[in-house]
Amino acid sequence: MDSSTAPALYTETGVFVAFEGGEGSGKSTQTRLLAGWLTEHGRSVEVTREPGGTAVGQQLRRILLDPATGELSPRTEALVYIADKAEHVDHVVLPALAEGKVVVTDRYVDSTLAYQGAGRALRAAELEPIARWATSGLRPHLTIVLDIDPSVGLGRAGSPDRIESEPLEFHQRVRQHFLELAGADPAHYVVLPADQDPEAVHIAVQQAIAPWLSQVSA
Amino acid sequence: MDSSTAPALYTETGVFVAFEGGEGSGKSTQTRLLAGWLTEHGRSVEVTREPGGTAVGQQLRRILLDPATGELSPRTEALVYIADKAEHVDHVVLPALAEGKVVVTDRYVDSTLAYQGAGRALRAAELEPIARWATSGLRPHLTIVLDIDPSVGLGRAGSPDRIESEPLEFHQRVRQHFLELAGADPAHYVVLPADQDPEAVHIAVQQAIAPWLSQVSA
Repeated sequence: MDSSTAPALYTETGVFVAFEGGEGSGKSTQTRLLAGWLTEHGRSVEVTREPGGTAVGQQLRRILLDPATGELSPRTEALVYIADKAEHVDHVVLPALAEGKVVVTDRYVDSTLAYQGAGRALRAAELEPIARWATSGLRPHLTIVLDIDPSVGLGRAGSPDRIESEPLEFHQRVRQHFLELAGADPAHYVVLPADQDPEAVHIAVQQAIAPWLSQVSA
Repeated sequence: MDSSTAPALYTETGVFVAFEGGEGSGKSTQTRLLAGWLTEHGRSVEVTREPGGTAVGQQLRRILLDPATGELSPRTEALVYIADKAEHVDHVVLPALAEGKVVVTDRYVDSTLAYQGAGRALRAAELEPIARWATSGLRPHLTIVLDIDPSVGLGRAGSPDRIESEPLEFHQRVRQHFLELAGADPAHYVVLPADQDPEAVHIAVQQAIAPWLSQVSA
């Protein structure tokens, strides 16, 4: 099918950074800290997230995370997540990169592969071509996996949403999948232990992103 | 990819009938008339529709048809329609067919191929493998295309939703696509002129479906 051939796209303008990781790994905190640091250093930053980075994405996010939604068919859930990505990439990420911004997203395609592919009835290999088609093959220059034992991370999260309510083994498979994705592409991934002081993680994030910033003039 | 290989599935229990066609072609009326006629003849009938045949589908339908949604990325729109189908097939259509029911749906996969594939920026060839994957390859035993000139059909519809507001050429491409799908698989399609008395169309529908009913004991 056409979607299987969507080649990996790394934009030549802007820098695209994704935070990935399980619940309670500190993605939101690190996204905020990184955005602040970049801004202080004169970078133009677009902070965003999946799901919910667009107006329609907000509606899709509510459907996905509201416990009242109940059980969805695994394919339904995956397709709603992927629809959110299509909108996000077309209307937020690509335009910001075209302007030369540093785009920092809290979750991207890997989360769908890990949560909907490795965690549930579907296989990541089924989902990846659809997700790549939906996102025009756009890849982050750098994906930062914030790695934490789910039994620790879940304890940090507040009242659980529909995804967080899944059993521990689900979250363990998700973690494993993130680590496998990172291991397969070390040029574009870094794995950081997230079970430490957020400021220490932030310093490591700065070090990881520094080489990529040189491609964007401040 | 896996999705491209989803083989056509025609269930051995139940009869799956889809009405397809443009705006104002009378699909809702014919769906209702057919359901009444089947029930009178002692058949167990499940009447349903896409989008919106499930609880989550109702929410997706609102997003898709509400003019307030504004312009969606073509891929987003297609994926939300396909997500609706995944839920519909898994939670409504397949269970009813397994019970031996006659399932009559107002729109199915062909509508997405025609509207999102032929009408807009995407090609049906990109969408079909994703839609087949989402619906486990399930095909209607019989698809009834209610064919009407869009300039007539659009005049019949009430205040336009987000899709009906598209220009006439869009709806002409949609019509052409339905006719091509029907022409390519005459064993499972019938095209009925819809610009006539609804009772006359209903009689033609009865004649088209009769051969398929013999495979289900009343």
